[in-house]
Amino acid sequence: MTRSHPSAAPASAATDPTSLHPSRQAAVEADACDPLASLREAFDLTAGLIYLDGNSLGVLPRATAGRIEQVVREEWGRGLITSWNAAGWMDLSRRIGDGIGRLIGAGPGEVRVADSTSVNLFKVLAAALAMVKAEAGPERRRIVSERSNFPTDLYIADTLARTAGFELVLVDSADALSAALDERLAVLMLTQVNYRTGALHDMAALTAAAHAAGGLAIWDLAHSAGALPVDLNGADADFAVGCGYKYLNGGPGAPAFVWAHARSLDRMDARDIRQPLAGWIGHAAPFRFTPDYQPARGMDRFQCGTPPVLSMAALECGVDTLSAAEPLGGMPALRRKSLALTEAFIAGVDARLSAHGVQVATPRAHDARGSQVSLTVPEGGYAIVQALIARGVIGDFRAGDPARGEPDLMRFGFTPLYLRQGDVWDAVDRLVHVMDSGEWRSERFQRQSAVT
Amino acid sequence: MTRSHPSAAPASAATDPTSLHPSRQAAVEADACDPLASLREAFDLTAGLIYLDGNSLGVLPRATAGRIEQVVREEWGRGLITSWNAAGWMDLSRRIGDGIGRLIGAGPGEVRVADSTSVNLFKVLAAALAMVKAEAGPERRRIVSERSNFPTDLYIADTLARTAGFELVLVDSADALSAALDERLAVLMLTQVNYRTGALHDMAALTAAAHAAGGLAIWDLAHSAGALPVDLNGADADFAVGCGYKYLNGGPGAPAFVWAHARSLDRMDARDIRQPLAGWIGHAAPFRFTPDYQPARGMDRFQCGTPPVLSMAALECGVDTLSAAEPLGGMPALRRKSLALTEAFIAGVDARLSAHGVQVATPRAHDARGSQVSLTVPEGGYAIVQALIARGVIGDFRAGDPARGEPDLMRFGFTPLYLRQGDVWDAVDRLVHVMDSGEWRSERFQRQSAVT
Repeated sequence: MTRSHPSAAPASAATDPTSLHPSRQAAVEADACDPLASLREAFDLTAGLIYLDGNSLGVLPRATAGRIEQVVREEWGRGLITSWNAAGWMDLSRRIGDGIGRLIGAGPGEVRVADSTSVNLFKVLAAALAMVKAEAGPERRRIVSERSNFPTDLYIADTLARTAGFELVLVDSADALSAALDERLAVLMLTQVNYRTGALHDMAALTAAAHAAGGLAIWDLAHSAGALPVDLNGADADFAVGCGYKYLNGGPGAPAFVWAHARSLDRMDARDIRQPLAGWIGHAAPFRFTPDYQPARGMDRFQCGTPPVLSMAALECGVDTLSAAEPLGGMPALRRKSLALTEAFIAGVDARLSAHGVQVATPRAHDARGSQVSLTVPEGGYAIVQALIARGVIGDFRAGDPARGEPDLMRFGFTPLYLRQGDVWDAVDRLVHVMDSGEWRSERFQRQSAVT
Repeated sequence: MTRSHPSAAPASAATDPTSLHPSRQAAVEADACDPLASLREAFDLTAGLIYLDGNSLGVLPRATAGRIEQVVREEWGRGLITSWNAAGWMDLSRRIGDGIGRLIGAGPGEVRVADSTSVNLFKVLAAALAMVKAEAGPERRRIVSERSNFPTDLYIADTLARTAGFELVLVDSADALSAALDERLAVLMLTQVNYRTGALHDMAALTAAAHAAGGLAIWDLAHSAGALPVDLNGADADFAVGCGYKYLNGGPGAPAFVWAHARSLDRMDARDIRQPLAGWIGHAAPFRFTPDYQPARGMDRFQCGTPPVLSMAALECGVDTLSAAEPLGGMPALRRKSLALTEAFIAGVDARLSAHGVQVATPRAHDARGSQVSLTVPEGGYAIVQALIARGVIGDFRAGDPARGEPDLMRFGFTPLYLRQGDVWDAVDRLVHVMDSGEWRSERFQRQSAVT
């Protein structure tokens, strides 16, 4: 999973690791100078809790509860059916999509919010495969991805490949991707940041390689939208999907988003290719209620059924927490802070936890990691994560498959909107305490079942 | 659309219509004796407003706002990621599904809540077509439905038919269905209650006819779940889907539900047939994160992505409003009240509005109508509905397609949980006022755009 980046040598390779781990006082002083510190005020945080799981479920923005109450009591309760127009419910998908678009290098109107990441991936992958079938010879039948991609992407792709006559080819490491991009490539389908290791792909380079091989590139931004600057149009990607409940802070199971390059829409139009989930909200004129399907011209075609308004409204509040960073430098500024946080965490682990066998599994080069650090420990890590949670630091555990050479991982996500250098220092310190004390060996932290 | 039912002659055919329309006093007295009257207390109703659009968006239950606040502030805000297990979020789909199952003749564990009606229809129709392909000869390639079915069902079916090598055959009236069920039938796909006219199909008879022809039967319960007793297992249907935001009062865009007969699951297992939206939540062991898809054994296979928890929680409150009717006689008792309400509305229209050319488009026979009455008027009706809304009676308008011989319709849904005979009387009275006064001819009620 790790890749060689000569321009960014591992920070701790040649120097004394302890020298890179500051004192708690220095960490707190750094927070006092943080130009993004005010963004933290937008969140309803639990005192004393250090939440390093925003890569799984973002925390609650302060604005959300009040906004949802307004949607429920006023817009639904009083406005009833009229709120579809009067309260702008019909426009939520595009409005929130525009906010997300500014985070991921998409233009106005290029993103829609709808359904789940899995469902949106199905739509765009099916459209992409139909485009390849219509435009290329029968030798282009490979969907290429990584075996370590998030499973739902592989499940969707495998099932689509079976019915559409394609083949899902999985490589075992990112290094093997280039060699897999040949004249058989139909679609390169990748998640930009790996959900296990936090490793970050070079979207522009891999998209260019897919195009050079004659294929298309679909990106899943689940762990990158809101976590780091993404430039879909700049990378010339063909389609993208992403998740609303991680770094976008949209709430549990928040709807997902979908993007297509303008060129992809033109190709669909030219070949009369539909995305297969042709529900009424994606119709050119949904309220004409005609029996014949006519897809909407632009991105609206990627909508399907009636959108879940309550969950959509919460997602809008979540996206607003990122939009609030725009006057402070936006995603580039958030990325600088995110890297400083993960860098500090890595330095702390190197300095204080390597003696316990704790190792960093996430690439150390800045351009090769997302906003997450994953750790390995000889003992596995499940119980260590539980003991750490008991000490007020929430991370999570992802078991590895020994058959695939995957280690067990302790995962820690670093959301620059609300985390501080002091939090990082304390998280390292509490992990040191858990390891030094051996308290994680307690029976109550051991795994109770196969499902974590 | 109307059908002949010799056992239930039109109520107003032979008698003086005015004799069936009681006085307001009699209507209010009937409400005082209504054994279901207490159910109304569960809703946050707007004083003075008569809401006859619960067939489009159900009203807000009183419990919902507080429950959603709890989910947002406590379960998400405080519980964060742990709430997936600790607050039972992972079990919402099955738990709410069990509640819906009691309304539609499905057993425990047979219903799941997920995605939208359109997406769920895609899942079950794709599975059904794959079953037919695996089990029957190439002559079975017809999906039969009605041209007046809700458009999203037709769009989903048409798009699936194109890619799977099937043909969507639409009949122009319910009378023509039987003749269309022959040796070419793959799937009969119908909505039990027509969204325009409120006409009710005989699910058991049509399912039996589909089976006799060697095909499968899929039912969309969008306008019947929570509106009248449904018995999926009793009718021996193969698959069903339905909507959460109409008679289930789940809120705008509430997630939908999906049901499969146990026999259908067995057939999918025997032929290794997947539903195509093979997302991770439908995996046999989603938290093992294996790269290979293995569908869950039971109904969980029809789940796909992470469920939208806020919208799910609101749906649970909505389903609870129907569960509260169980000790009072449940769906049969609600059906009796619903028929009494629609009967009173029809009688009022016959008695007081026929002179204005207002006619009932919904079948008059009880076993041929749902919980809705649609009216035609020579002038079309758009402006009349707007004028009626201005007088505090909310119904809606659905334009007809003259090319298909469809009239414009004014639609009125009657939710027995919260409507009273007095409301019905007042609604008729206000419509009489709108017609007598001619106030609907005012410029402000005329249609502003092609989209209503």
